[in-house]
Amino acid sequence: MQLVVYTSGMASTPGDAPLSSEAPATPAGGAARRPRIAVVGASGYAGGETLRLLAGHPGLEVATVAAHSSAGRHLSEVAPHLDLGHDPVLVETGVDTLRGHDVVVLALPHGQSGQIAAALRAEDPDVLVLDLGADHRLESAQEWSDYYGSEHSGTWTYGMPELPLADGTRQRDHLVGAREIAVPGCNATAVSLALAPLLRAGLLDAERLSAVLPVGYSGAGRAAKQHLMFSEAHGSAAPYAVGGSHRHVPEVLQNLRRATGRDGQRLAFTPVLVPMSRGILAVCTAPVAEGTSTADLLAALQADYAEEHFITVLPEGVFPSTGEVAGANTLRIGAVVDRRSGQATVISALDNLVKGTAGAAIQSLNLALGLPEATGLTRTALAP
Amino acid sequence: MQLVVYTSGMASTPGDAPLSSEAPATPAGGAARRPRIAVVGASGYAGGETLRLLAGHPGLEVATVAAHSSAGRHLSEVAPHLDLGHDPVLVETGVDTLRGHDVVVLALPHGQSGQIAAALRAEDPDVLVLDLGADHRLESAQEWSDYYGSEHSGTWTYGMPELPLADGTRQRDHLVGAREIAVPGCNATAVSLALAPLLRAGLLDAERLSAVLPVGYSGAGRAAKQHLMFSEAHGSAAPYAVGGSHRHVPEVLQNLRRATGRDGQRLAFTPVLVPMSRGILAVCTAPVAEGTSTADLLAALQADYAEEHFITVLPEGVFPSTGEVAGANTLRIGAVVDRRSGQATVISALDNLVKGTAGAAIQSLNLALGLPEATGLTRTALAP
Amino acid sequence: MQLVVYTSGMASTPGDAPLSSEAPATPAGGAARRPRIAVVGASGYAGGETLRLLAGHPGLEVATVAAHSSAGRHLSEVAPHLDLGHDPVLVETGVDTLRGHDVVVLALPHGQSGQIAAALRAEDPDVLVLDLGADHRLESAQEWSDYYGSEHSGTWTYGMPELPLADGTRQRDHLVGAREIAVPGCNATAVSLALAPLLRAGLLDAERLSAVLPVGYSGAGRAAKQHLMFSEAHGSAAPYAVGGSHRHVPEVLQNLRRATGRDGQRLAFTPVLVPMSRGILAVCTAPVAEGTSTADLLAALQADYAEEHFITVLPEGVFPSTGEVAGANTLRIGAVVDRRSGQATVISALDNLVKGTAGAAIQSLNLALGLPEATGLTRTALAP
Amino acid sequence: MQLVVYTSGMASTPGDAPLSSEAPATPAGGAARRPRIAVVGASGYAGGETLRLLAGHPGLEVATVAAHSSAGRHLSEVAPHLDLGHDPVLVETGVDTLRGHDVVVLALPHGQSGQIAAALRAEDPDVLVLDLGADHRLESAQEWSDYYGSEHSGTWTYGMPELPLADGTRQRDHLVGAREIAVPGCNATAVSLALAPLLRAGLLDAERLSAVLPVGYSGAGRAAKQHLMFSEAHGSAAPYAVGGSHRHVPEVLQNLRRATGRDGQRLAFTPVLVPMSRGILAVCTAPVAEGTSTADLLAALQADYAEEHFITVLPEGVFPSTGEVAGANTLRIGAVVDRRSGQATVISALDNLVKGTAGAAIQSLNLALGLPEATGLTRTALAP
Repeated sequence: MQLVVYTSGMASTPGDAPLSSEAPATPAGGAARRPRIAVVGASGYAGGETLRLLAGHPGLEVATVAAHSSAGRHLSEVAPHLDLGHDPVLVETGVDTLRGHDVVVLALPHGQSGQIAAALRAEDPDVLVLDLGADHRLESAQEWSDYYGSEHSGTWTYGMPELPLADGTRQRDHLVGAREIAVPGCNATAVSLALAPLLRAGLLDAERLSAVLPVGYSGAGRAAKQHLMFSEAHGSAAPYAVGGSHRHVPEVLQNLRRATGRDGQRLAFTPVLVPMSRGILAVCTAPVAEGTSTADLLAALQADYAEEHFITVLPEGVFPSTGEVAGANTLRIGAVVDRRSGQATVISALDNLVKGTAGAAIQSLNLALGLPEATGLTRTALAP
Repeated sequence: MQLVVYTSGMASTPGDAPLSSEAPATPAGGAARRPRIAVVGASGYAGGETLRLLAGHPGLEVATVAAHSSAGRHLSEVAPHLDLGHDPVLVETGVDTLRGHDVVVLALPHGQSGQIAAALRAEDPDVLVLDLGADHRLESAQEWSDYYGSEHSGTWTYGMPELPLADGTRQRDHLVGAREIAVPGCNATAVSLALAPLLRAGLLDAERLSAVLPVGYSGAGRAAKQHLMFSEAHGSAAPYAVGGSHRHVPEVLQNLRRATGRDGQRLAFTPVLVPMSRGILAVCTAPVAEGTSTADLLAALQADYAEEHFITVLPEGVFPSTGEVAGANTLRIGAVVDRRSGQATVISALDNLVKGTAGAAIQSLNLALGLPEATGLTRTALAP
Repeated sequence: MQLVVYTSGMASTPGDAPLSSEAPATPAGGAARRPRIAVVGASGYAGGETLRLLAGHPGLEVATVAAHSSAGRHLSEVAPHLDLGHDPVLVETGVDTLRGHDVVVLALPHGQSGQIAAALRAEDPDVLVLDLGADHRLESAQEWSDYYGSEHSGTWTYGMPELPLADGTRQRDHLVGAREIAVPGCNATAVSLALAPLLRAGLLDAERLSAVLPVGYSGAGRAAKQHLMFSEAHGSAAPYAVGGSHRHVPEVLQNLRRATGRDGQRLAFTPVLVPMSRGILAVCTAPVAEGTSTADLLAALQADYAEEHFITVLPEGVFPSTGEVAGANTLRIGAVVDRRSGQATVISALDNLVKGTAGAAIQSLNLALGLPEATGLTRTALAP
Repeated sequence: MQLVVYTSGMASTPGDAPLSSEAPATPAGGAARRPRIAVVGASGYAGGETLRLLAGHPGLEVATVAAHSSAGRHLSEVAPHLDLGHDPVLVETGVDTLRGHDVVVLALPHGQSGQIAAALRAEDPDVLVLDLGADHRLESAQEWSDYYGSEHSGTWTYGMPELPLADGTRQRDHLVGAREIAVPGCNATAVSLALAPLLRAGLLDAERLSAVLPVGYSGAGRAAKQHLMFSEAHGSAAPYAVGGSHRHVPEVLQNLRRATGRDGQRLAFTPVLVPMSRGILAVCTAPVAEGTSTADLLAALQADYAEEHFITVLPEGVFPSTGEVAGANTLRIGAVVDRRSGQATVISALDNLVKGTAGAAIQSLNLALGLPEATGLTRTALAP
């Protein structure tokens, strides 16, 4: 199978498209065909968002759109906001419908991706499979069973390119050429990328980390449940998974271990559903090391992220809100030391469906396929 | 001046009115007239909410409604949701319009109540004045100037009846017969009442307290500002006063000192505006003392609040949301210890305009006048 | 069965309780017990709202709370915003659990109330049954089957006290002493009461009526459905039942026939779900008779409603919004003639769960039992 | 001045970018520079949205960003969601700062664009000026003064490409090469494009048209006003400009006259602010000509719009919601005849800031400059 070969590196057009692609990557061999991609779980929010981004991605051909309960319906029926230039019929999810693609994106409830992924990979070792579910994120089978109560499906390459690692590399380096990619959890991304640089720099008390996350409802998925209904959510802030039971906690701790080369981090983690559809605001607090200043925090964040296209470290005194990132692949971070309390407050904002899920998937597959990393992604949000 | 004398004590009707009064307090001397009350700042949210509660309060007569920029307009023009049985014209705020009342409620921006209150009190030592603003909450002139940058107006009796004090009394005991009452800040109420019992019991690391508060927009007042516009707020979670600069911080610390008899508490405090009109969800975290269990937290909360009519300590595993308290004078609290993180998470929910402001004012004036404490208040919220 | 006998008539306290009861009705025979009421469907929005209002109703005792799927749970689990003074366990809905009450309120999906109501009435001809569902609203078995596709359950006394009738009476007169009451549909109430006086006065072209109704999500009930989820509803205005298929259409036309004594009215009816929980804004338009002025419209509305406690006809140039009526039992109406278009625009606002459902039920049962009509109801709303 | 010359015609990539540009237009003469554009009113919603679209527009260079009260600030301060690849300082609006550009987009309050536009055009007859305000939309000076109460600034080429005209042309044909373009009003676009084909086909009673429009708050602009505050808007549907006083009414009627070649249309027009930021849902009703069927309505819409890239006529029984169009340049229309009422209901949905304002401006300037009409625009929306 001869695939397009791309000259790698970050696309470099001035600015970038609103909620969309940077300049299209031009194939070195124009004759070659674009890789064919299949998206599974298209009737859900994560799958739909993946298709929204792919609609503006010049380097891939959306060849198959699959679902389960919605199989047989037209995409326009389940996602009338999308325009792929044609209106595909959703096919049933299965090895038969998914084989023969260059890339398969699985947006399935956790526990459902392991088996189908194994079958596809067994048939075609060249196929790139991305799992938007949780199945392949954790390295520890014990932590998996502690939090998910089922058997571990194994560990794939983690799709968080910007995560700085203790060995001096970045997670990005591990994604180039990868064929099995575990896309991170949205809350885990917001908290891990906010805290990692500060812990690497030794500025925070790693045993007393706390994160409270006002989050939008799309993160809870599209399956109808009473507590997700508009009337229940309207005008209410509702905490859930209080007390450390949220499944993204071990994922954050794993990231912090990999970023620092140390373990022992302890994190209180409280998500709060608030009346918005998209967005996560991770408000992280921790006691600071003696003498740590706001400038120290910002310097540590800049040290790790100054060159990152999709991460913005805000100036002193400026903090992000989720309205600034809707539809964009950006993570925005602000930080301050409160001398009276002796604690740091670090706040990050992202769109759970983009930087938190589908955008991370596209960014990772770009790296895996040798496309410019930002292809099909944007730093401009839809506001107001 | 011969006033109605009431037999004090909690009203005891089964249940209570939806968003409204318990059984009307019956005067011991039926002949006597009802105290006459003036509400200042009626065109704002705090003043309007005070009138909403007074509309259902059987023990008082709303004699005067005052404002400044809206003076001369009918109440129905600035608050079409209210029905006092008549439609008063708002009079200009001043000593001339406010003298001659038994009770005066001041809902003014901070800094504006000190002078007028002094004048009214000087003319009539019997008049009860309640300040919904911040001017008279803090005991320390230094803290006042640190946070407000102006001269201290002095300290009034603090209107938080349920606050347990180190000397074994409650703040309630100090409100009986009071004539100068400083109504607490809404965020201060949510955090202080959640943490005080746990600190009194020595269960938390008092030097590493953190509170993140998703809050609704009504707390920011009714004055038109760009960041408070619907389109700016819609779909966005926006932190403010990050880094310990919020003016309710010294108020919380003062309350915790009074409740514990100790000082040295340190608090990271981060409010986050979320797209709702009413409601505060205070998510408080802190490291726990060795061996502290969830049961210990709940027992400490019950020890202080079991008898409190307007505070509900939720069972283990249950946490409040703000949708449960809209329009009610209730504070609902849940707590848990996360053994993995070694931290406690304590969450309280209240309606910033009721338990956080106008309800606290009514509850306090009931105590000051010898009315049943719950008169005109309810434990039932408007949902969905 | 000896019941309390009340001196009828409108309660007359100055003003009324915020979102709550007017002065409690005092029994003529103090010795007699309060009527015992059972509420069926307590875990739904209509049933929950009925309980919210009953919590503040001094003339009735909530003896039984029933449900189906939630049977066995405590009320506090399904409706944590309510406080009846105790926390009843929801019993299974059935004749066994419902017999022996003075009043039974059925808040069930249409089609489910007919049989159980018949059984209860057969056992006890004195029992008052109110059906919040649609089963007993329509007089025409043909219209019932056309719109509901099932067999007609018969016609009960229609619970819309303010509806003026062609014979010079009001629907109120028919409710006194009634024992079978069909509570109106929420949209039908908003449109019928807005148009009836104008058609009675012959000011509108009855064959070219149009109503567009932005409505909140609580009207769609609490059963989990994908299109009712927060993320689907957020930021979207979504029409439904377009083209005249809404089941409230024949109910409105029936009301207009009864109010005018004429038939032949034709109504285009389009509800639009908008992102709010409560509220209906009925925007009605129709060509006006030659020479009709805005003053004519307002005069006709005043002619029918000037004495109505819960209907407010707004001054010229003023129109209602749903934010003014949340939690209140009020209907507010504004009207104008646009000479350029030759059409009238008549706008009414109400809270679909109060004046549109549970408030209408309480108002009707007050009439049926001889209680002051406004008992347990309020004209003051919760805002902002 | 030698400008890039483009081969005109619709861009033809399969599908199009998510909320963004179709394939970039390639200059015939690669050497030539891209036209330089200035955007005035960048701190407002219309100006900001224009910049959002230009950020993804490959055919233009954003050379100047101007404002008034925000002059001197960085774009990132007033619009943190935008990324132009650089962070320009907003310059003061004036002829000095705006001269020397190929295109100037004026997003100013009505009444402010006439003078500055005249000065720019006088200096450089080649400059293309687009007015997002109302000043140059109306042909009749009388109607202008009737609705705006000021002197008429004259009439420019109307920026609604899809509007079918009585003479068999489209408004598109008049935009090619235009240098003075009046961008339509957002509500006028929603109503005009929904009704024009049906009136052209003689299917509706043109003298009894009614339109009710649930609209989002961004259409009211970014200037802080009390009735636009979140707490006022939350949970409320609020009508405004009731009775035909809205300034888009004469604009709609002008469009209908031009589309049909007839006058005498009469329109009742009622916008209703609902709690969303973006979006207009125009619900239009009118009596139908004898025998008109739903199929007739859809056929007439298809006859005019089948070839239109940005207008979708939905199948029978399907109607649009505003959530489907947020961020997209699409207008979606559904229609039905209700035989019982004898009326048609025609519903259109658009994003007021895109198809209603900034998207229409980009589409029109593409035509004026000879760029592919869809450049920088998308048919894919951001949902949920």
